[in-house]
Amino acid sequence: MIPARSVPEAMDSVRDGDADAALVPLENSVEGAVGVTLDELANGDPLVIVREVVLPVTFVLAARSGQSLAEIREIASHPHAVAQCRGWLRRHLPATSTVDVLSTATAATGVAKGDYDAAICAQIAVERHRLTVLAKDIGDHPEAVTRFVLVSRPAPPPTPSGNDVTSIVVYIAHDRVGSLLAVLTELAVRGVNLSRIESRPVGEALGRYCFFLDCAGHVAEARMGEALMGLRRTSAAVRFLGSYPRASVERVMPAPGTTDEDFADASTWLARLRSGGTG
Amino acid sequence: MIPARSVPEAMDSVRDGDADAALVPLENSVEGAVGVTLDELANGDPLVIVREVVLPVTFVLAARSGQSLAEIREIASHPHAVAQCRGWLRRHLPATSTVDVLSTATAATGVAKGDYDAAICAQIAVERHRLTVLAKDIGDHPEAVTRFVLVSRPAPPPTPSGNDVTSIVVYIAHDRVGSLLAVLTELAVRGVNLSRIESRPVGEALGRYCFFLDCAGHVAEARMGEALMGLRRTSAAVRFLGSYPRASVERVMPAPGTTDEDFADASTWLARLRSGGTG
Amino acid sequence: MIPARSVPEAMDSVRDGDADAALVPLENSVEGAVGVTLDELANGDPLVIVREVVLPVTFVLAARSGQSLAEIREIASHPHAVAQCRGWLRRHLPATSTVDVLSTATAATGVAKGDYDAAICAQIAVERHRLTVLAKDIGDHPEAVTRFVLVSRPAPPPTPSGNDVTSIVVYIAHDRVGSLLAVLTELAVRGVNLSRIESRPVGEALGRYCFFLDCAGHVAEARMGEALMGLRRTSAAVRFLGSYPRASVERVMPAPGTTDEDFADASTWLARLRSGGTG
Amino acid sequence: MIPARSVPEAMDSVRDGDADAALVPLENSVEGAVGVTLDELANGDPLVIVREVVLPVTFVLAARSGQSLAEIREIASHPHAVAQCRGWLRRHLPATSTVDVLSTATAATGVAKGDYDAAICAQIAVERHRLTVLAKDIGDHPEAVTRFVLVSRPAPPPTPSGNDVTSIVVYIAHDRVGSLLAVLTELAVRGVNLSRIESRPVGEALGRYCFFLDCAGHVAEARMGEALMGLRRTSAAVRFLGSYPRASVERVMPAPGTTDEDFADASTWLARLRSGGTG
Repeated sequence: MIPARSVPEAMDSVRDGDADAALVPLENSVEGAVGVTLDELANGDPLVIVREVVLPVTFVLAARSGQSLAEIREIASHPHAVAQCRGWLRRHLPATSTVDVLSTATAATGVAKGDYDAAICAQIAVERHRLTVLAKDIGDHPEAVTRFVLVSRPAPPPTPSGNDVTSIVVYIAHDRVGSLLAVLTELAVRGVNLSRIESRPVGEALGRYCFFLDCAGHVAEARMGEALMGLRRTSAAVRFLGSYPRASVERVMPAPGTTDEDFADASTWLARLRSGGTG
Repeated sequence: MIPARSVPEAMDSVRDGDADAALVPLENSVEGAVGVTLDELANGDPLVIVREVVLPVTFVLAARSGQSLAEIREIASHPHAVAQCRGWLRRHLPATSTVDVLSTATAATGVAKGDYDAAICAQIAVERHRLTVLAKDIGDHPEAVTRFVLVSRPAPPPTPSGNDVTSIVVYIAHDRVGSLLAVLTELAVRGVNLSRIESRPVGEALGRYCFFLDCAGHVAEARMGEALMGLRRTSAAVRFLGSYPRASVERVMPAPGTTDEDFADASTWLARLRSGGTG
Repeated sequence: MIPARSVPEAMDSVRDGDADAALVPLENSVEGAVGVTLDELANGDPLVIVREVVLPVTFVLAARSGQSLAEIREIASHPHAVAQCRGWLRRHLPATSTVDVLSTATAATGVAKGDYDAAICAQIAVERHRLTVLAKDIGDHPEAVTRFVLVSRPAPPPTPSGNDVTSIVVYIAHDRVGSLLAVLTELAVRGVNLSRIESRPVGEALGRYCFFLDCAGHVAEARMGEALMGLRRTSAAVRFLGSYPRASVERVMPAPGTTDEDFADASTWLARLRSGGTG
Repeated sequence: MIPARSVPEAMDSVRDGDADAALVPLENSVEGAVGVTLDELANGDPLVIVREVVLPVTFVLAARSGQSLAEIREIASHPHAVAQCRGWLRRHLPATSTVDVLSTATAATGVAKGDYDAAICAQIAVERHRLTVLAKDIGDHPEAVTRFVLVSRPAPPPTPSGNDVTSIVVYIAHDRVGSLLAVLTELAVRGVNLSRIESRPVGEALGRYCFFLDCAGHVAEARMGEALMGLRRTSAAVRFLGSYPRASVERVMPAPGTTDEDFADASTWLARLRSGGTG
């Protein structure tokens, strides 16, 4: 276990062979996609996702030992965290001012150094800096979660579990509704469902985007294979980001006619037709 | 060469092995599909189309030797033929009555036997019955053509010519616009163009149809193969009616990303991904 | 009630004002579309369908009085009728020959004149020619029906019944799968279902088609109106053939979001947005 | 002109009537969407976009007066800004360390206070804090831009300019590829092009998204109006965020059949049909 200062640093350490894998945040149920992770997955030497982990997001209010809630005047945190605790702060500390810092970890460090009275941060930062917890679970969205992915250097994907996700990046040639429709149709016509779509700018001008797609299924499955080949043939470019077990137990059943058995039957039938049989 | 009295008889003689192939009319540029041929192709033991021939439709006005145009009072023909010569008849023989008979050949036979004064028929019937041509090319649609197909017992299709037609019959499970859209989308997404679509009733009730499709391409080509497999998987049933050279020289070029090379590249790429490569 | 010798004659008598309406066959559950009716609807001065009637098709074997089944050697009928009675003939009169004539009515006339021993025809022809019925219901498809439509000169369509059909002819500019897909998508996106699609050749060359569509709904309904306007804007041409009550009781419910109320709500909402409201 | 500390604060001041409008960043050509702005537009009392402004993003390296480039050891900036200047830093200051702070403005403040040697910031911050520019245009993406929008309380949209953007948020009922396809099809079938699509999480769980769409056209135009009504009828919810002139001169021409004239013609035609005319 090696801590990294940033997502790019963590992923570069995998690329360089200094680490075997990196656990990086991909999206948060409140704040959305983590752009830097998407960009790192889309660019540079390819890495693949081999596992996903969905973890609850919980915030504590932490201070140095001996401080009481009544003494808190200035609270530091990342603005996203402050935003997620706004309701609690309004009810319990209406007179307190907040200081925006770069991360919740930075806020905890600052509290330890005496820069601020308290930090909104994760429990782990409390332990690292020997702080005291003044209040737990202060987030306004108690069910908020962050989805992390474990990325490694390219390797054969894990065996299909029957409930997998395949992540890809697709680049389209023209920024028209028709182009995105065509991408989605390549998936839909093979019965591949989307669980997420995220656009990201490409290059320096506005108006050019690539799309991060999370698809239900595994690259080893026939319908996913045919859909990926369709995207490969018809889009400007596709980067495969991995097939891995879905963290959630909620499973999407394949549409009629799209199981591996259906594809195998169709393939046998076509072979008969091509050799003069009658189907 | 064995003449047959009807399309079903001709096709049954191929099924029974009494003939190697039958040349049957499939559609006429003025009258449309020849329903009996479609039905014979869709039902019974499978036959396949191995060639198409497009022939001009020309009509002559034929009488017994010695008859002159001025003496013609009653003209026999098939109503379709009469309809296609209506303009000429109005201009040249406005006072003549027409008798509807079952075919232009029957009309010529009747003229030879003395049943009628003249027949609207094909040149070949003139020769067969030693009639005299009173007027040539009397059709109102001088460019009208009939498309015939040569059908044989199932056999490996002819080698792809680069400009082929693949004919199929597709049955859909539900009579909704969505079902037909789904069929057409299976073709379109693989870049397979349609040159003809014809619906025919299925069974005894109204509202159930199958679709006769003429698609641009050959079953041996990757895009056609994948499209056929898609229909096989997702429609109620598909019957393959053959891949054969297109009679017309007008050629449809494959859409970008749909050549056999594009499919082969995509297949190689997918194999790399599945074995842990990076594409 | 004026009998007409042919479908075109019947329809021209309406166009000319000699008749108020004509009842013409549109499709048969066994034989499919009646091409001549489609062509007459698509061409010439516009006529509109105001009603549809679905009638069972039943065949009798009729002969002159005094004839018995055992004496029948030669049976006349239209080939379609012969085809639909093939099973009965094989079981009951295997040694009989059949003579193809232009219509079942012609066959009955011929029997009355003594040209043939018996006719396969409709009950009404038996009465007209004072023939005797040797066997009833001899068709192999006892549930076969023919769908007739009553056509009149253009007039406001009948009031919506809640279960109507709208018939149109659509011409597409390019004979590609994409063009037909676009037509069907204009319907599907407004929740308009198809109950029939029929292609017919346009002009003299093969490969150009128009499409006869029977859509579920009435021109007075919002979703049908918007779909028709969409076709008007994006296809080469559309001819409206009428909105009229569906003969069958089987009713298709509108898809969610496509009732007249949904359209009215959306229209009110849009008006609010355009005037600076917030929806 | 009132400076606001954050995007939510700026937008709330418009909601509260303390300001007439707020200029907020919507997306950056390198970093992508500004999530907090999207969330503020989607939630709370409605606000509308009335104008967009696209501004170049340029970075300077700024220090206190008297500092030279050779003396710089520690540079502060927002990590996005550091990332965009990584190439310049590697070439010119390879030994320097960077400190991540919350914004480029914060970095400039810190330099003025003596916390850091230099800041990567905008020119305007240099003037505000009386700093010295050590290097200009140090970004690796010299054409990078940020798109700002001016938001106000709901009001009638600006008159169509002929080259407008309409921004909306669409919520879909089911997280399937089919649902997003349906949204895009509502737009495509009316000839409305997308210039941007952005997904954002909805609520607290992963897997539920809404979509921010920038569409080419104005709410006052017929095709946009019909498309918006289609989304209103068929999606779970739509929020209109405004129609306003496109900042870029690059103009998308309407597809054939989708001008206001085409819609007006189709509407007149439908009215004729409904009243018994023939189109």
